[in-house]
Amino acid sequence: MVETVALRWGHRPRDFRVTTHVVLTARAFGASSVILSDTQDATLRETVERLSSAWGGRFSLKMGIPWRNAVEEWRRSGGIIVHLTMYGENIETSKVIERIRSSRRKIMILVGSQKVPGAFFDLADFNVAIGTQPHSEIAALAVFLDRFYRGKQLQRRFSKARIRVKPSRRGKNLITIEAGTATSARKSL
Amino acid sequence: MVETVALRWGHRPRDFRVTTHVVLTARAFGASSVILSDTQDATLRETVERLSSAWGGRFSLKMGIPWRNAVEEWRRSGGIIVHLTMYGENIETSKVIERIRSSRRKIMILVGSQKVPGAFFDLADFNVAIGTQPHSEIAALAVFLDRFYRGKQLQRRFSKARIRVKPSRRGKNLITIEAGTATSARKSL
Repeated sequence: MVETVALRWGHRPRDFRVTTHVVLTARAFGASSVILSDTQDATLRETVERLSSAWGGRFSLKMGIPWRNAVEEWRRSGGIIVHLTMYGENIETSKVIERIRSSRRKIMILVGSQKVPGAFFDLADFNVAIGTQPHSEIAALAVFLDRFYRGKQLQRRFSKARIRVKPSRRGKNLITIEAGTATSARKSL
Repeated sequence: MVETVALRWGHRPRDFRVTTHVVLTARAFGASSVILSDTQDATLRETVERLSSAWGGRFSLKMGIPWRNAVEEWRRSGGIIVHLTMYGENIETSKVIERIRSSRRKIMILVGSQKVPGAFFDLADFNVAIGTQPHSEIAALAVFLDRFYRGKQLQRRFSKARIRVKPSRRGKNLITIEAGTATSARKSL
């Protein structure tokens, strides 16, 4: 699987819930890490670590790196930059996702908030719009990754998980894994 | 296009941003309305109305209806209920989306928050998981609608728009529509 990381720009304390959704979406949809640029948020770190430790997988959350440094470091190590913006090339009507795939390079996805630095548009190798209507960076990130990985990320097993869901038509089935053995439990609703 | 509406359950004032993302995602991804059940939020209504009036389309936001009433009314008028939950059938590894499509009925999508009433699991015709990891109801709604409409919703034109984006590889191109004529303007970054 091609490596993807998301860089979340413009986080403020009042965005806690939205940024949490960004981070968990990145993790669930196959990104290996999220960089929260230019700021720190201890509560966010704690929330994500607790969740990752229970649900498994290799996922890291980095914080406080200035966005320019993160971008430059990414380029130096051979990666490309994709900026998600409603002003970019429409993922549905252009061939932008095929062009991104054919680069065969690891991808940093810039996920902004209301108004991002103008420089994002120029430094990005691809400006990608998930439709041309205003909506949500969480939705944009999810759909980009879902299409980029062709849905395969949704069947990935997360290593070293302590809990897993067993899909079912009704109700909640949680599997608790302890020292190599799994017990299935139907959670009360 | 088969009609879809989203019912957002469990909104609290502190969820304002997340619920706004839910509503805008529903609108951008082809739903005809969102029902904010059991509560009201005047600021949310104002935000959505302002945006819809600029960006066009027929989209409505309803508020304050008890969720059971909304569900029962939907059933009476011939619709089915899809509950998005991480415990449901995995959209990627099951044929649930084909089964939903083959019902050829209009769809109400239940979008919860942390913990939804247990009754949701039983009353739903389909419990659908967008992967089996915890993430975001915004991401789940976006991916469900993107897959259900097979991406076609992202090329839809919104009627009576006053502004539109012209997709471009760099920068921001906004088209302002006035009395039938369109002017293109490159926005400063």
